[in-house]
Amino acid sequence: MTLAPWRTPLARALHRNRALVYSRYAQLATVDPQGRPHNRTIVFRGFAGETNTLEFITDQRSEKVAHLHHQPWGELCWYFPQTREQFRLAGLLQIIDELHPDPQAQKARLHRWQSLSDSGRQPFTWPHPGQPRTGDLPAAPPDPLTPPVHFCLLWLAPQQVDHLELRGNPQNRYCYRQDDRGIWTVQAVNP
Amino acid sequence: MTLAPWRTPLARALHRNRALVYSRYAQLATVDPQGRPHNRTIVFRGFAGETNTLEFITDQRSEKVAHLHHQPWGELCWYFPQTREQFRLAGLLQIIDELHPDPQAQKARLHRWQSLSDSGRQPFTWPHPGQPRTGDLPAAPPDPLTPPVHFCLLWLAPQQVDHLELRGNPQNRYCYRQDDRGIWTVQAVNP
Repeated sequence: MTLAPWRTPLARALHRNRALVYSRYAQLATVDPQGRPHNRTIVFRGFAGETNTLEFITDQRSEKVAHLHHQPWGELCWYFPQTREQFRLAGLLQIIDELHPDPQAQKARLHRWQSLSDSGRQPFTWPHPGQPRTGDLPAAPPDPLTPPVHFCLLWLAPQQVDHLELRGNPQNRYCYRQDDRGIWTVQAVNP
Repeated sequence: MTLAPWRTPLARALHRNRALVYSRYAQLATVDPQGRPHNRTIVFRGFAGETNTLEFITDQRSEKVAHLHHQPWGELCWYFPQTREQFRLAGLLQIIDELHPDPQAQKARLHRWQSLSDSGRQPFTWPHPGQPRTGDLPAAPPDPLTPPVHFCLLWLAPQQVDHLELRGNPQNRYCYRQDDRGIWTVQAVNP
């Protein structure tokens, strides 16, 4: 694969903000079947293999999975505090659940589960997220080898990337667009 | 007015994270007329007068203003790094532009413009955001007394607030909901 042109500034931002653990946190917007937006923080886990696809994890029972079945387009907003820059990455999201037919995707799902910490795996043992809490949450760590049924990967394949540098004097902003043939172009735009 | 019950934990988060200037930055999700979500960082400016309405500023020419004319419902995702907690605030957004008929709202718009720093006012002198950049951006500071035509307030009146504390052991999550009479209730839910 070809490295998309926005990968270089994104890699630079990740590197320059690496002292802040939360520089790997970003906000994902989805749309529900009623046409309303939803927005939550998710953790960037890296790129899926040798692709330009961003990898996250999610719980099959979370609202965003239902939203994505209805509207698979999402936008990630990623602000880097140290360097004062923002990336907005929009594109189609794919859910890799237990029933996903692609063996390579299943391998990635297994690998990601096994690479998590115990505390990263813990939420998948808890009862249905968002439902009324009725007591203590399970504290026993789950099997580190076998992902539970509701453990999913979430893959975002950006088609549009908007990069804003607030630190410039004046600010700089670049729009990256992928055409139907998969070719990326970039244009400087007004911030 | 009555202080909504989520105001206390939000005020506590703002206080405990006050050392980080970017703890006042949050991400706003809107929906475009094609039903796709968009997401960008905005700066919390405080509450509108004696209300539970959050105030932001925006440019009339920005995409989100067009989105909100189509779908006024939005969701703000606000992550506080120091205390590791997230607020998701959803509700109707109102744009206070130059033509807004309410004198109180116009007073608030004028007051907000005058309270900005020169660098905060500067972007409103720049050419249309998102359009191809053709040269240097204007550097002369705008009139600090009179807001330009495309300076707007953005008011978010939350009807649902989801508060997640990642630092709890285990985590804690609370859902606040406002009913048709404006009464707030809160429920502990599974994280």
